[in-house]
Amino acid sequence: MFIFVQNNSDMAGNSYGTLFRITTFGESHGEALGGIIDGCPAGIQIDLDAIQKEMQRRKPGQSTIVTQRKEEDEVQFLSGIFEGKTTGTPIGFIIPNTNQKSDDYSHIKDTYRPSHADYVYEKKYGIRDYRGGGRSSARETASRVVAGAIAKQVISEIKINAFVSSVGEIFIDKPYQDLDFSLTETNAVRCPDLASAEKMEAYIKEIKKQGDTVGGTITCVIQNVPIGLGEPVFDKLHAELGKAMLSINAVHGFEYGSGFCGARMKGSEHNDLYNEDGTTKSNLSGGIQGGISNGMDIYFRVAFKPVATLIQKQEVLTNQNTIIEQQGKGRHDPCVVPRAVPIVEAMAAIVLADFYLINKINKSNY
Amino acid sequence: MFIFVQNNSDMAGNSYGTLFRITTFGESHGEALGGIIDGCPAGIQIDLDAIQKEMQRRKPGQSTIVTQRKEEDEVQFLSGIFEGKTTGTPIGFIIPNTNQKSDDYSHIKDTYRPSHADYVYEKKYGIRDYRGGGRSSARETASRVVAGAIAKQVISEIKINAFVSSVGEIFIDKPYQDLDFSLTETNAVRCPDLASAEKMEAYIKEIKKQGDTVGGTITCVIQNVPIGLGEPVFDKLHAELGKAMLSINAVHGFEYGSGFCGARMKGSEHNDLYNEDGTTKSNLSGGIQGGISNGMDIYFRVAFKPVATLIQKQEVLTNQNTIIEQQGKGRHDPCVVPRAVPIVEAMAAIVLADFYLINKINKSNY
Amino acid sequence: MFIFVQNNSDMAGNSYGTLFRITTFGESHGEALGGIIDGCPAGIQIDLDAIQKEMQRRKPGQSTIVTQRKEEDEVQFLSGIFEGKTTGTPIGFIIPNTNQKSDDYSHIKDTYRPSHADYVYEKKYGIRDYRGGGRSSARETASRVVAGAIAKQVISEIKINAFVSSVGEIFIDKPYQDLDFSLTETNAVRCPDLASAEKMEAYIKEIKKQGDTVGGTITCVIQNVPIGLGEPVFDKLHAELGKAMLSINAVHGFEYGSGFCGARMKGSEHNDLYNEDGTTKSNLSGGIQGGISNGMDIYFRVAFKPVATLIQKQEVLTNQNTIIEQQGKGRHDPCVVPRAVPIVEAMAAIVLADFYLINKINKSNY
Amino acid sequence: MFIFVQNNSDMAGNSYGTLFRITTFGESHGEALGGIIDGCPAGIQIDLDAIQKEMQRRKPGQSTIVTQRKEEDEVQFLSGIFEGKTTGTPIGFIIPNTNQKSDDYSHIKDTYRPSHADYVYEKKYGIRDYRGGGRSSARETASRVVAGAIAKQVISEIKINAFVSSVGEIFIDKPYQDLDFSLTETNAVRCPDLASAEKMEAYIKEIKKQGDTVGGTITCVIQNVPIGLGEPVFDKLHAELGKAMLSINAVHGFEYGSGFCGARMKGSEHNDLYNEDGTTKSNLSGGIQGGISNGMDIYFRVAFKPVATLIQKQEVLTNQNTIIEQQGKGRHDPCVVPRAVPIVEAMAAIVLADFYLINKINKSNY
Repeated sequence: MFIFVQNNSDMAGNSYGTLFRITTFGESHGEALGGIIDGCPAGIQIDLDAIQKEMQRRKPGQSTIVTQRKEEDEVQFLSGIFEGKTTGTPIGFIIPNTNQKSDDYSHIKDTYRPSHADYVYEKKYGIRDYRGGGRSSARETASRVVAGAIAKQVISEIKINAFVSSVGEIFIDKPYQDLDFSLTETNAVRCPDLASAEKMEAYIKEIKKQGDTVGGTITCVIQNVPIGLGEPVFDKLHAELGKAMLSINAVHGFEYGSGFCGARMKGSEHNDLYNEDGTTKSNLSGGIQGGISNGMDIYFRVAFKPVATLIQKQEVLTNQNTIIEQQGKGRHDPCVVPRAVPIVEAMAAIVLADFYLINKINKSNY
Repeated sequence: MFIFVQNNSDMAGNSYGTLFRITTFGESHGEALGGIIDGCPAGIQIDLDAIQKEMQRRKPGQSTIVTQRKEEDEVQFLSGIFEGKTTGTPIGFIIPNTNQKSDDYSHIKDTYRPSHADYVYEKKYGIRDYRGGGRSSARETASRVVAGAIAKQVISEIKINAFVSSVGEIFIDKPYQDLDFSLTETNAVRCPDLASAEKMEAYIKEIKKQGDTVGGTITCVIQNVPIGLGEPVFDKLHAELGKAMLSINAVHGFEYGSGFCGARMKGSEHNDLYNEDGTTKSNLSGGIQGGISNGMDIYFRVAFKPVATLIQKQEVLTNQNTIIEQQGKGRHDPCVVPRAVPIVEAMAAIVLADFYLINKINKSNY
Repeated sequence: MFIFVQNNSDMAGNSYGTLFRITTFGESHGEALGGIIDGCPAGIQIDLDAIQKEMQRRKPGQSTIVTQRKEEDEVQFLSGIFEGKTTGTPIGFIIPNTNQKSDDYSHIKDTYRPSHADYVYEKKYGIRDYRGGGRSSARETASRVVAGAIAKQVISEIKINAFVSSVGEIFIDKPYQDLDFSLTETNAVRCPDLASAEKMEAYIKEIKKQGDTVGGTITCVIQNVPIGLGEPVFDKLHAELGKAMLSINAVHGFEYGSGFCGARMKGSEHNDLYNEDGTTKSNLSGGIQGGISNGMDIYFRVAFKPVATLIQKQEVLTNQNTIIEQQGKGRHDPCVVPRAVPIVEAMAAIVLADFYLINKINKSNY
Repeated sequence: MFIFVQNNSDMAGNSYGTLFRITTFGESHGEALGGIIDGCPAGIQIDLDAIQKEMQRRKPGQSTIVTQRKEEDEVQFLSGIFEGKTTGTPIGFIIPNTNQKSDDYSHIKDTYRPSHADYVYEKKYGIRDYRGGGRSSARETASRVVAGAIAKQVISEIKINAFVSSVGEIFIDKPYQDLDFSLTETNAVRCPDLASAEKMEAYIKEIKKQGDTVGGTITCVIQNVPIGLGEPVFDKLHAELGKAMLSINAVHGFEYGSGFCGARMKGSEHNDLYNEDGTTKSNLSGGIQGGISNGMDIYFRVAFKPVATLIQKQEVLTNQNTIIEQQGKGRHDPCVVPRAVPIVEAMAAIVLADFYLINKINKSNY
């Protein structure tokens, strides 16, 4: 068995993962999005329905509390799968943009919306694809969900459950152990605590009426993780999970295990004492010691800021350096967290698949 | 100008950065620690005193509230600097371990301490360097501080100021704008709010008497950052900063800008409206839009759990799968955050130097 | 100015280049081939006709001495280009496989052809896409030509001219300085020495009649290269060029400058004496000193083995470990070098674009 | 089993290998050379004598036909080995420069020697470490030999034998199968054909008397290689071997299997027909099909140009753009190939260890 290697990044910032690796391309209003999944093991039977099901979860227009924008999000696989099985060669796929309403955006051609990437893109590249934010659009995450759905099939014994744990000031007030994850998909908010879900849904509808938006948090619980995933120094398991989550649009914070509360505690309260079988009595460590999984549940929380696009009048900057009032248009999410749940799971699955494949080497007795 | 590239990781998990890159080696009780700094620009006059000064800040034994363990932490540069200037070739350096008390650790040879990496290391590698935790020891961060000190000289116009913002339940109750960073080094806690610093220091001494430990948070403010640092998709500036911070021992959480509070807000409250010069009236975005710096202050907060080593009796697991009581020994920090301040700055400097060099390409008009 | 960085490889072996990077996917008989070009500068006006023209050069069925297999090789760009210019975001493209005759290959489903990858693929992956060799097919190089055509537009001042310098025993007997590269495209062999071209063409036709194949060499001359391209240690300019060429199907050798002849010479004969302007009187160094371009012409020679697929009866291994006689079928090249000329240029352009972008940083005065 | 990954390069051009990775630092006349070996499996008993023995082979001053420069080349390991075994953490090591005669080089401070890297270094970096060529010195290969010696212990069942196959016009006229590799170390030239060895040695002495130098070739034979090493597209096994060899100082060419001769042959002559057990009757493929090892012997040939430093008067360029006559001084090799034999083996071992570790994953049945 031996130490191993992880590289959750790539030269051009459009890839993620090392042994299991996704590279994405595509703008919100180009001809198509897509990507290449590389390093996927050969001989895996691929369940295409499971993949499409994940796409449906991310898709707009699923309910009244998310954007009514229509996106078909039909994945077409072009390579790497032969007679239903992965061949070990790169899996190329595209997702055509069937519903490009560029005219929706022509009004922002010469303006920079507050808290959007418009301004920095133009400064950085000297050119800007103003159609729906181009590459900065969350539409890019559709490709991540495809890769995540395949990653889930690579690590099928590991269970990944993300859910909405707060919307605005409305929080689930139970520990995750008291929740039934099978209820997550039963409501539009994707909150397994139905009482909270109802409040959240009502609040989001209210916010939507105001043409406003609201933030929220997603909690993710990963169970049945083998011991030994993660690298000790720079590529700690929680460091990679953190980067993966922070790479999702609108995320402003990440904490795992005891998180920010842990910073208020004493060591005598915080240490997780062992049972004789190597499990721990408590789990404030969040299933990770020194950057390496210890077999206990991994859990973390991700903070999403409110969507910046409002259906209200607000001040914008023009490329003539003037401030004008502009009415927000288009079809946008009043609250992004319900649709972000499958994206959080996808990124977690990609990180775990990567470390999982690495760990197989440790298993192959040296 | 053009898009660019970032890769804050490496195949073996012992490197960080791409264009500006540190690779570290060494255990807490081996012959020496050290590393290689690669991709440092040629022709930079290196201030060796400034480097040693950073080492002093991280060094144990600086005050009564940190471990009295003696580490000389004398850096020896072996290559890459000729006649006082960088040559563009890799900078190799070592930090001899002058004070290795392996016997301090012999008592834990056969036991796994709670909330330490002992257990997962032995499971992962089938072998364990039990002397002071070997590679999992925070002593590894000495090499990071060397690289960070050189990174600071590469990006000398960017100002990086980290400080202790909370210890246990004691928090600074002012916005960073009201703080005088020049006071950070005037007290043992490294808290620029002197009233809070006094309370924190008293509390840490109290905790130390109990043989206990306590967690805390560090806030880091980065000023005078050029517009355009960061990559839009996976390698967002805040995603790399987050990974860098989460890779520091004992860190359990990271938030930037509005952070977790932002998740409770409405878009109409959260959006940062522009001034005509492209600056923003508020800065809940934390100086980053869509993963790219916008020229405003970057600020983030890092949560550290309490140190796991207690100078108390506690239950440990043996490699015979029994639980025994063991008295904690050795010289450890009752609170890690004061000594972690220079490490947070070092990792921030490494990330920024990397993106800064990348950005120089954008500047070289295509 | 400073030292820099090069990484002509990627975690999954399906990418090439660092700052300018191509990742390819696709099998010869899947739905489509394609790739992602990442790190291409923003703001470059893209000449699509020039790209399609390169595709025509690689395309089968151009003349009687290459395979009559029909491949439309129509490139469709899906992202990264907006209003005719690169945006700095990844350029995704596909090349549909319009003419998949899988039945051509059903006869080899259970057999391993000599000097093909059939056998090692099945051993390595435990599964085999037997349609035209799947991923091992030279059809994959179509995606390289797309990336190379764009790379040429990034480094437009650098002139890359490859040509056939030998077929079997027929060699051009002139130094490249005496050749008119504008004649390369005037004949089916792509040999700028018309007398040799005629002999080569006749010989290939003869070989084809026999159902046999023959090897050859391609020489590539790169002119107007700036000084300073290449890294001094592992990523020497000629080491990357060598890897790039050896990654092309059927290549068995690479030499640059004096090459294997240089190994027979004395230092007093081999050294290139300087002129006062820094140019050299001779150029046995092939335009590269210590891995770094010195501004003189770069030239190298690439050896291609004969194509393994014969239109003859030959012994093959079955997956039942028996040897049987099998008649070669399908439409194959009797000699691969004429069609390989644009591929050699494409890979050279990708390597040079990568180092060229790197070098722009050196230019941006530190 | 599945497809896998290879990345024989790194962001800063001072590293080689992915899973088994060496990063080197150090100039010929700095305080020390050294490096970090990362990703070495844990639990390997390290034979330090075997490592020092390899260092002796590369060391100057071994015989009358190599430079009499004294270099102690004593390796000091600083980390990664505990109680005689690798721990899976990075192995840091240094090789002090005990015999730095900088004054030997002061005379070239202001001049650029023909066919040296002096000129391009100064152009590229704007600064030059003129002491013995600084980083461009072959002294850097000492660190490669340390890594190669450890790599050999990782892949102990694979046999790597390199030897001098030609010096100037003197060639071994036998196939490698007729050679006894145990004779390689019995003579100063490292040629296992004793008759040729004698001629070569005499010739090198003659050349040395003239103050001249001569080139040569090294052949390397790798036996007992498992099937499946190498990646199919860009990271073909022979492409990585080629890059590794071309990264060695003074190398101008690489060919494997039939090499340049193969380019003259017909397919009907070149194809390697199978035996029923999957071995092949001939081996013009050099043990590699489609970039992947097939279990047959891997063999390749490397061309070294003559050393550029002559102990003669020759014209040099000054940094004032004048040409002057200068007398070559210092202690240099009249022929580099005898000392390059262990370097060729070291780089081959590093490449193979990398692919070997990768392949262990394929073995761990998915």
